[in-house]
Amino acid sequence: MTYQHISFFSDYGTRDEFVGVVKSVIADIAPHATVIDITHDIAAFDVRAGSLAIARAVPYVARGVVLAVVDPGVGTARRAIAVEVDGGVFVGPDNGLLGSGVALAGGAVRAVELTNADFHLPAPGATFGPVAAHLCNGVSLDELGTPIDPAGILPGLVPLPRNEGDRLHCEVTWIDGFGNCQLNVGAEDVSSFGARVTVTIGSENPATQIVRSVPIVTSYQDIGGGLGLVVDSYGMLSLCTDRGSAAREVDATSGMGVIIEHAQDSGVVTSVQIGRTAPGGAGPARAPGA
Amino acid sequence: MTYQHISFFSDYGTRDEFVGVVKSVIADIAPHATVIDITHDIAAFDVRAGSLAIARAVPYVARGVVLAVVDPGVGTARRAIAVEVDGGVFVGPDNGLLGSGVALAGGAVRAVELTNADFHLPAPGATFGPVAAHLCNGVSLDELGTPIDPAGILPGLVPLPRNEGDRLHCEVTWIDGFGNCQLNVGAEDVSSFGARVTVTIGSENPATQIVRSVPIVTSYQDIGGGLGLVVDSYGMLSLCTDRGSAAREVDATSGMGVIIEHAQDSGVVTSVQIGRTAPGGAGPARAPGA
Amino acid sequence: MTYQHISFFSDYGTRDEFVGVVKSVIADIAPHATVIDITHDIAAFDVRAGSLAIARAVPYVARGVVLAVVDPGVGTARRAIAVEVDGGVFVGPDNGLLGSGVALAGGAVRAVELTNADFHLPAPGATFGPVAAHLCNGVSLDELGTPIDPAGILPGLVPLPRNEGDRLHCEVTWIDGFGNCQLNVGAEDVSSFGARVTVTIGSENPATQIVRSVPIVTSYQDIGGGLGLVVDSYGMLSLCTDRGSAAREVDATSGMGVIIEHAQDSGVVTSVQIGRTAPGGAGPARAPGA
Repeated sequence: MTYQHISFFSDYGTRDEFVGVVKSVIADIAPHATVIDITHDIAAFDVRAGSLAIARAVPYVARGVVLAVVDPGVGTARRAIAVEVDGGVFVGPDNGLLGSGVALAGGAVRAVELTNADFHLPAPGATFGPVAAHLCNGVSLDELGTPIDPAGILPGLVPLPRNEGDRLHCEVTWIDGFGNCQLNVGAEDVSSFGARVTVTIGSENPATQIVRSVPIVTSYQDIGGGLGLVVDSYGMLSLCTDRGSAAREVDATSGMGVIIEHAQDSGVVTSVQIGRTAPGGAGPARAPGA
Repeated sequence: MTYQHISFFSDYGTRDEFVGVVKSVIADIAPHATVIDITHDIAAFDVRAGSLAIARAVPYVARGVVLAVVDPGVGTARRAIAVEVDGGVFVGPDNGLLGSGVALAGGAVRAVELTNADFHLPAPGATFGPVAAHLCNGVSLDELGTPIDPAGILPGLVPLPRNEGDRLHCEVTWIDGFGNCQLNVGAEDVSSFGARVTVTIGSENPATQIVRSVPIVTSYQDIGGGLGLVVDSYGMLSLCTDRGSAAREVDATSGMGVIIEHAQDSGVVTSVQIGRTAPGGAGPARAPGA
Repeated sequence: MTYQHISFFSDYGTRDEFVGVVKSVIADIAPHATVIDITHDIAAFDVRAGSLAIARAVPYVARGVVLAVVDPGVGTARRAIAVEVDGGVFVGPDNGLLGSGVALAGGAVRAVELTNADFHLPAPGATFGPVAAHLCNGVSLDELGTPIDPAGILPGLVPLPRNEGDRLHCEVTWIDGFGNCQLNVGAEDVSSFGARVTVTIGSENPATQIVRSVPIVTSYQDIGGGLGLVVDSYGMLSLCTDRGSAAREVDATSGMGVIIEHAQDSGVVTSVQIGRTAPGGAGPARAPGA
């Protein structure tokens, strides 16, 4: 069983020659293989962000090898592994990076720890790149190392939303380059909320949190002005503005808490609350619907 | 008729997995196709900048498919189109992005609106990427959708310079990563001006505009110190410095107005005007030649 | 003799279409060739940084053509050259960019100046890209131009460390995207220093220099807290922290001087020097071992 495609995720960035060196090593070992750069701009050492990027992309990656390197523990005791799934093999560190992707690809068929140094190089990308290339050449998992129990692979740390009474507590899991803020909430999680909800953004800090009444829509244009929750192309809710950066508008950061609840008003959005005075500049939480 | 190469332009950036996902989808549909990333760093939603980048690159792109996505109206009524030219097909939104490129490629032979969803995916890059791949596989334009009149495709918004008396009013259309500022002026437009001209940079604002006597040259080294107008590799005039950033030197922005006229002095460049006093800091326009 | 792979280094960045245009030109001339982007983010015009990146990557680049463009003198009298080595050909400007890479590849077998314009295009990447493609097609060096003496190629400017008494004076030659600061010092250069040394960072400026006692280790984790000197995957010493940016911690810049000497203390690291007062904020050099 040989493969043509290697889908490559890393936190290497493209400023340096790391990605190019790994691709060079692959080209020498498996000249027929094509490397598809999925992204190399995962934040340095951010295993969770890498895990989420892999989870988002896995439904689309080409049949073959997924090579994923976000590896703050490089050189330590964390295991290097290869995990076979239906249609391909994941290669990377066993630090939580691969778990979600493997699950979304249908689960592990079998797995090995990459203990056979005959398939490594003493160089940057010393283990994972060469192993990915050898897999493309038809080397079997058995040759690459010692079988391990797939159930023992470190799972991905995908945060789950939780209900507290009528309020759905969730968080920003990804801010894309356009400033759209994806939440860990699927469209089905809010199906009972209606077409307009109240969101509390930055829910950890009452002093700076932002409360808005926003529509739930399926295209950016349907937002109209201001913020909206768009069901994005992954089926998840994403805080967006039409042709602008929602992240900039609400000063969002990855991991920021968000609460979604039934709309607190009649749909009228107002930024002035008659009869209430905000003392001295930055007062307490903005009123619902403001 | 099959194609090998897809030249890919977008405003997706490379921070996220969007580009990689589109390439993955293409790899699955048309494994023989090679995607050439032309650029993915067109400013978000900037259709005009994308149109200009395509126009600059079109003379060099490989025979095959041009896949171009700068699409602020994604999900709205703007049409998705494919336009056949001599030697290939352009695929993208009908929002002004493709017009200039199509014209520079010799004009449209025929065009279709991409109405046949059998060739799309319900996913990111849902329409354009899959269609580009199917074109590489030999799917004909007829199968992809409904024929449309090529004359109805939204033209690119390429700004034209204009003469007012002896003055040529133009603008900065592109600032490259080195800080060179390309103008919408070809070498032939200034052939009557001689080897040295006076440029007024930031012509909209007399209070901050910069006036300089600069040479028109064909290599960076011939500029000597300061600014020069270099006939760049596209045949256009570009405000440049030798081994430095002209954009930083004059605080240029894309779209900034520039006036070119016959040199106002004898070629002597001086930064002190004897007998004239600039009152209080930021005075009016700097004197010609200063 | 044909080649499949072109390893491409430049300072073009990926913001603009330059890299894509060069790859398009190559695709048209040599459709079978695969371009591997090693890096395009060498600092603009920084020939030394480019030379060092090539030197680091050369042990890993695929057999074939190395295409390297950092060319502040484009359009001037600097020569365009191709240099054959064992296993491939380097193509680029003769400005010091190629010298170190050629040496690390085993030295030049023969070289030519690229004087035959039949193999160039009148376009961006006008010379080097097309020549790289023609080399992949089997065009011989003889056809590309005039033979030159390989001994006359401008050597790379690799800075050497120097000993002054017991102190090894070196410098930061590369700060990678993770903030690791590689020095121009191999592991063998400090083999007599023991497992812990004193480093003086920013040795040019006594007022702001930082002095630390640091371990010499082979993995990031072995650093423990604070700074360490890690023998990196290139066999060089690199100032690092575990899962953080050493460059940010010591405000490092490329070219900054560093002195390595025998540890000045018993291995106890303290940040307070009893009995010494730092007058008024930024005092003189921090005490050794602090």
